[in-house]
Amino acid sequence: MASDRPHHIVIVGGGFGGLFAARALGKSRNKAIGEEIRVTLLDKRNFHLFQPLLYQVATGSLVVGDIATPHRVVLRRYKNVQALMGTAYDLDTERRCVLHEYGEIEYDTLIVATGVKHSYFGHDEWRAHAPGLKTVEHALEMRRKIFTAFERAEQEPDPVKRRALMTFVVVGGGPTGVELAGALGELAHHTMANDFRSIDPREARIMLVEGAKDVLPAYDQDLRDSARQMLEELGVKVIPETMVENIEEGQVTMRSGQLVRTVPAETVLWAAGVKASVFGQVLAERAGVGLDKQGKVKVQSDMSLPGHPEIFVIGDLARYEPKPDQPLPGLAPVALQQGRYVARLLKRRLRGKETRPFKYKDRGSMAVIGRNRAVGDLRWAHVRGFPAWLLWIGIHIWSLMSFEQRLRVMLEWSWKYITRKSGSRLATGEPTSTIELRQQRGMEAEK
Amino acid sequence: MASDRPHHIVIVGGGFGGLFAARALGKSRNKAIGEEIRVTLLDKRNFHLFQPLLYQVATGSLVVGDIATPHRVVLRRYKNVQALMGTAYDLDTERRCVLHEYGEIEYDTLIVATGVKHSYFGHDEWRAHAPGLKTVEHALEMRRKIFTAFERAEQEPDPVKRRALMTFVVVGGGPTGVELAGALGELAHHTMANDFRSIDPREARIMLVEGAKDVLPAYDQDLRDSARQMLEELGVKVIPETMVENIEEGQVTMRSGQLVRTVPAETVLWAAGVKASVFGQVLAERAGVGLDKQGKVKVQSDMSLPGHPEIFVIGDLARYEPKPDQPLPGLAPVALQQGRYVARLLKRRLRGKETRPFKYKDRGSMAVIGRNRAVGDLRWAHVRGFPAWLLWIGIHIWSLMSFEQRLRVMLEWSWKYITRKSGSRLATGEPTSTIELRQQRGMEAEK
Repeated sequence: MASDRPHHIVIVGGGFGGLFAARALGKSRNKAIGEEIRVTLLDKRNFHLFQPLLYQVATGSLVVGDIATPHRVVLRRYKNVQALMGTAYDLDTERRCVLHEYGEIEYDTLIVATGVKHSYFGHDEWRAHAPGLKTVEHALEMRRKIFTAFERAEQEPDPVKRRALMTFVVVGGGPTGVELAGALGELAHHTMANDFRSIDPREARIMLVEGAKDVLPAYDQDLRDSARQMLEELGVKVIPETMVENIEEGQVTMRSGQLVRTVPAETVLWAAGVKASVFGQVLAERAGVGLDKQGKVKVQSDMSLPGHPEIFVIGDLARYEPKPDQPLPGLAPVALQQGRYVARLLKRRLRGKETRPFKYKDRGSMAVIGRNRAVGDLRWAHVRGFPAWLLWIGIHIWSLMSFEQRLRVMLEWSWKYITRKSGSRLATGEPTSTIELRQQRGMEAEK
Repeated sequence: MASDRPHHIVIVGGGFGGLFAARALGKSRNKAIGEEIRVTLLDKRNFHLFQPLLYQVATGSLVVGDIATPHRVVLRRYKNVQALMGTAYDLDTERRCVLHEYGEIEYDTLIVATGVKHSYFGHDEWRAHAPGLKTVEHALEMRRKIFTAFERAEQEPDPVKRRALMTFVVVGGGPTGVELAGALGELAHHTMANDFRSIDPREARIMLVEGAKDVLPAYDQDLRDSARQMLEELGVKVIPETMVENIEEGQVTMRSGQLVRTVPAETVLWAAGVKASVFGQVLAERAGVGLDKQGKVKVQSDMSLPGHPEIFVIGDLARYEPKPDQPLPGLAPVALQQGRYVARLLKRRLRGKETRPFKYKDRGSMAVIGRNRAVGDLRWAHVRGFPAWLLWIGIHIWSLMSFEQRLRVMLEWSWKYITRKSGSRLATGEPTSTIELRQQRGMEAEK
């Protein structure tokens, strides 16, 4: 590895894993890493998305700009790091090069952090009716669906149709599903309560469907109970031990044991399974390594691939089992710590020093439910209610990428907290045009 | 008009004209209009858009939420006003009813304020290559085009292609074109100057093409000269007396007198002609009234239609000539004053009082150029430079719809002013997927 030119580390994917690896490898004025490392961060987007708050965009509390930051801005001060926008589609492990939309990049070391996307458990046709929540576009689609449903209910004279328009089914009772359902409850019962003339938003039905016997199955029983109670106080009906059997335009079919029922619902939101990104599968094939059932790449204890010490997989895409059959969960802190770990490992390796296996430092996890409630498992204590919510606020504002965003989000949350108003309830996306409507109705469209 | 039920005023279109009419007709706790008026505001969107600042979304200074406010939020306190979302496609002047996407609404009085859209002078095929700037989606498409061009230039080895990627052509030298070109200059020369590794954004070519002999042809000569000088200081090349002859993928052909030239440019932005919205044409046909060349509806001195005292047209869609052949311009203050005027007229009419013709109170107009420069014609004085810019800032912050937005925009502009940073440079919109790329390149797509 000793050569004249700097060691080139290519990172594919700029989520928490990729971005924190790039930052830890970056040479800013304050750090003396030397001239030996050059980093390229390749992402199909030109921005990092703070995914844990994406549900707040979907429900109109925050706007996209609050939680998306250009990679270029985050990485501006690291002069040895270059951010590139382009979708990777293949790699050559012999030539050590990544092929992407606008060209190819040779690497000495490769870090793959392309994450996961939604899985509809083999029913991809459900996607059209039940958007998930992984990208900015998903969040805007959800936002459009949610607010359009209320707008249409306001002018629907038929009570049966109105009921379907005001029924919201959230599939999946993990943290995302719980936070989404809680935000919907808050929206219907408080934020929008006085904004309509014909309907009462408080009559909205919000159903949270979960296969296990409780929401937040990864949490301890007392926190699960608290979460359920908080959801019910916001008018969310928790439906446990129930699997979705079918999703069609305007209705969901679900099974609880022997009982099968079909619920008319115009808005179905998907917060259930995930599967590995396609680039992960390409990588596994090219590098000859194994995948788990979700398509995640099995990694060694230093996050590298067997037989490929120069290739690392981190974040949601990696399947790492510190103990047999106990893989690490797909959470931002795991990805972030793995990014920093691999950066440190590479710096040590370049200097010929020994390296140690990755060890996840679990500081616990939290889920927020509505305006001023949350549950949290901090490992050394369980927190809930208002103090938990304050802690959650603090952690999330602190974790945002830029000082500007911290200020803005703090301002927006304070504003919303004091006034219970929220002005970001925008149904964006091209509306039906007059010409389309006239064509649909068999009229001649004027030019 | 005397009857038991309240007089129902339907407003189609929630831009400045429609929204200000609705507000002026609204009954809030502080106003004693009585119970005689009921208002419905119908719009294809659920939000009002502050169009004069849309170019700042397109260039990454503001986010959509800063300038878009749900009609429902703006009108919340007026209990006699109902906001409905739906696209109007026809009307029946006999039955006095508007037909829209989700149903129909009967009116006693109708106010049409559906505005204008872009006109490509009969070349609708240019639209695909040169987005305009009338809607949120247009602005996001422009933003995507602008920042993707820089991203691609950063990784383009061929200098000829790189030059085309870094060439931006703005068509139309009116206020929108000037503000857009100025913001692009600011972006390339200041905001992004240090963000790239392979390219120097300051080398971007920004061309502003205008048919007349000067930019801002509606302004006096001294202001036109100032504007041109300010643009040049930001690296914008003004190309006057030039018409666009053709726009294709990657190039623009323009004619200046006898000289025809083709400029390779990946990004072409349209800020030229407008034409009336389709609903305006439907209205004219149903009501049997005349249109001008741009499809605008000719109105009488009280903004009503000849033979239809119950139908008013206001804002950009109306063609009103206070003096022969001198129609009012399509500006926000005109629309806003017409909205308020018609509201006042209707209240007087309902009480059997006399009404007077509409009179536009022209307080002047301004155009901002870059970070701290503007030109303004205040009728009683010409202003330019930094004082003009401060005045512009004040007027625009004051004009925003909600207190929350005023705070946010003030914060963002101050932040940007102090740091010269801007974090909203997001190329949103679905990127090319790995699967698509693999298919394009003849590879089998893994599932």
